[in-house]
Amino acid sequence: MTVPAALPASAPPEDQDPYLARVRDHIRALPESGIVEVMNYGRDRPGMIPLWAGEGDVQTPAFICEAAAAALHAGETFYTWQRGLPELRAAIARYMARLYGVPEDPSRYFVTGSGMQAIQIALAMALGAGDEVILPSPSWPNAAAAAQKAGARPVFVPFAYGPSGFALDHERLAAAVTGRTRAIFLNTPANPTGFVATRADLEAVLALARRHGLWIIADEIYGRFYYGDAPRAPSFHDVMDADDHILFVQTFSKNWAMTGWRMGWVEASPKLGQIIENLIQYSTSGVAAFMQRGGVAALDQGEAFVAEQIARARRGRDLVGDALLATGKVDLVKPPGAFYLFFGMAGHGDVASLGLTLVDEANVGLAPGTAFGPGGEGFMRLCFARGEAQLAQAAARLVGWLEKAAV
Amino acid sequence: MTVPAALPASAPPEDQDPYLARVRDHIRALPESGIVEVMNYGRDRPGMIPLWAGEGDVQTPAFICEAAAAALHAGETFYTWQRGLPELRAAIARYMARLYGVPEDPSRYFVTGSGMQAIQIALAMALGAGDEVILPSPSWPNAAAAAQKAGARPVFVPFAYGPSGFALDHERLAAAVTGRTRAIFLNTPANPTGFVATRADLEAVLALARRHGLWIIADEIYGRFYYGDAPRAPSFHDVMDADDHILFVQTFSKNWAMTGWRMGWVEASPKLGQIIENLIQYSTSGVAAFMQRGGVAALDQGEAFVAEQIARARRGRDLVGDALLATGKVDLVKPPGAFYLFFGMAGHGDVASLGLTLVDEANVGLAPGTAFGPGGEGFMRLCFARGEAQLAQAAARLVGWLEKAAV
Repeated sequence: MTVPAALPASAPPEDQDPYLARVRDHIRALPESGIVEVMNYGRDRPGMIPLWAGEGDVQTPAFICEAAAAALHAGETFYTWQRGLPELRAAIARYMARLYGVPEDPSRYFVTGSGMQAIQIALAMALGAGDEVILPSPSWPNAAAAAQKAGARPVFVPFAYGPSGFALDHERLAAAVTGRTRAIFLNTPANPTGFVATRADLEAVLALARRHGLWIIADEIYGRFYYGDAPRAPSFHDVMDADDHILFVQTFSKNWAMTGWRMGWVEASPKLGQIIENLIQYSTSGVAAFMQRGGVAALDQGEAFVAEQIARARRGRDLVGDALLATGKVDLVKPPGAFYLFFGMAGHGDVASLGLTLVDEANVGLAPGTAFGPGGEGFMRLCFARGEAQLAQAAARLVGWLEKAAV
Repeated sequence: MTVPAALPASAPPEDQDPYLARVRDHIRALPESGIVEVMNYGRDRPGMIPLWAGEGDVQTPAFICEAAAAALHAGETFYTWQRGLPELRAAIARYMARLYGVPEDPSRYFVTGSGMQAIQIALAMALGAGDEVILPSPSWPNAAAAAQKAGARPVFVPFAYGPSGFALDHERLAAAVTGRTRAIFLNTPANPTGFVATRADLEAVLALARRHGLWIIADEIYGRFYYGDAPRAPSFHDVMDADDHILFVQTFSKNWAMTGWRMGWVEASPKLGQIIENLIQYSTSGVAAFMQRGGVAALDQGEAFVAEQIARARRGRDLVGDALLATGKVDLVKPPGAFYLFFGMAGHGDVASLGLTLVDEANVGLAPGTAFGPGGEGFMRLCFARGEAQLAQAAARLVGWLEKAAV
């Protein structure tokens, strides 16, 4: 098995404008999003059903918007705490204590301008030029790209894939550790695969990290989109000690329909507080106080909304998943978590082209698996965090297309 | 003259908790803000007049808040354009064409989550591990710290200082260029010195950059806070060609009293568009669309407000500056730009302690010059972007303290 040295560059340097030669190589080589091509192709089609992005179709609930607007009008427009409003850090601590049974400790939480920024901050502490980070693949591409932006090398370890879906390959994970490895990035429940780490998986990854002195960057943002018999997926919170080197990255985006707000948090040992404050100071210098008031409302008053979001996603998963399975023409295991179907469509050519074909012939927008790195070849990703009527129509179109397709 | 190799670390590594040993060295060594000590010391004193931060005392105007709140309630809460809303990029282009006489070209402008993020993006393109960036000093510390965060080395070149104030020392700038130099960072009008580059200065810096193939990162965020006979300070826009390697960083913070919003922009050659989009994608993934609607309102309807802000700052400069000059006990030249007095107080001991003393004995909060790097020793910074009544009281307190102080 060959592990790619880095993500592919957008264009080989020799094809680029000479003006760009003065841009640092690892920045010039950052990949473009692999979903953009199909989105640009299909965005303006009448009646198109867009299931390509990792975003629901529900706008932020009014009570959250009202909390932010009230703070804005009240003049909360000045510089604020670099680690986040004390009221928001306290609300996060209450929320995490409720959900994970951890001590209620606001000093562990640091508000960031998106989950993406939380990842960037975690990576900055763990990785520099020449270092390596291990990521199961296929995976959300931004984590690997952010590592590359930091001058580091993402090392992809393919998931095992079989009749029960995607699973971690612990032998390959262990074999991927080198003298330059500094971190393991684990997203569970996972985008795009729907993989959910078991408690045994988490214990094994933690043992590996402890053995080699590695950071774990834990992306558990889909933790509540879990279709097992528990209110949330297993978490590193269930297996870790206080002095483990684990950095959690979180976001308001998915649970509370706040994708556009760009607000999240890092959870880390309070010992890292000043370093994280410095990293926030020297990257964006904090998050608007009035937006943070919306975050407080979401955490303190959002449980009914979150419960409905998750119930709706579960219905969406079953609706589209069962319809596709009934055709016998896709390779699909209904996922235990997150809000994507990631299914094989062998025999239809390369999936980037297939995405365009499905826009033309089914008027449904899916993301090609190749946008998610090694192991995504032959797969398509479909987001089911949407309303039933729209999903039913999308399923009917895809089923109709599959029935007619000559494979 | 010795040029410091890097900013001082917050604490020597050997004094730090062993938990932190796994954090990358250049990140662990990032400096804390040098203003925080005095702010924490004085923040809660009754009647304290805080002139330590780079922020006015006026909240964001209602018409800007209302535009943002309306968009929020209208459901602009989804993912948006990574380069910024087309409407905002068009508004920036109109504004820049009005102010600088440049062609109205939205493709040159990229919306960022703060001016600080604009700096981070510019530095990421220009600098990597082991590279050097030249900065005149004293200067706003975040630019140098952000370079250090990118693994690079800030090289400080002291301003010349004489009876007419601060000036660029072009010989020393040229002498600071080495084989590792990749960029010159120039802030004009400057924080904290109030220095304003002349057209001749800009031509000389541009010639130096062209000669050595360097980037210029132009921080002209105080461009309108200019007390000469023109509506704005001289700008690289006045001397550059389209194919020069100049990256402008900008912010909504100062002109429109939006410090807390964390919104700014990068101006760059459209050839860098995809690279800048990638850097935004992999750091914060864009700025909330509803906030950007506030930015459109600021640019299109904010001229009367900006004019009043600048007139007020000019009055503040004269009020406090003339009062301090009349004592004959400070070393002060009234600055031609920005909104700070940066004045020498020799004979009062080190300025970090002096800041605390002034809190205790004058109940006025100033920032010590040492917070702004080499060359700041012996100086204090005072922000005059505030109301006249408060500034008059602060001036009276400082004058009274100076008259009594035994020097």
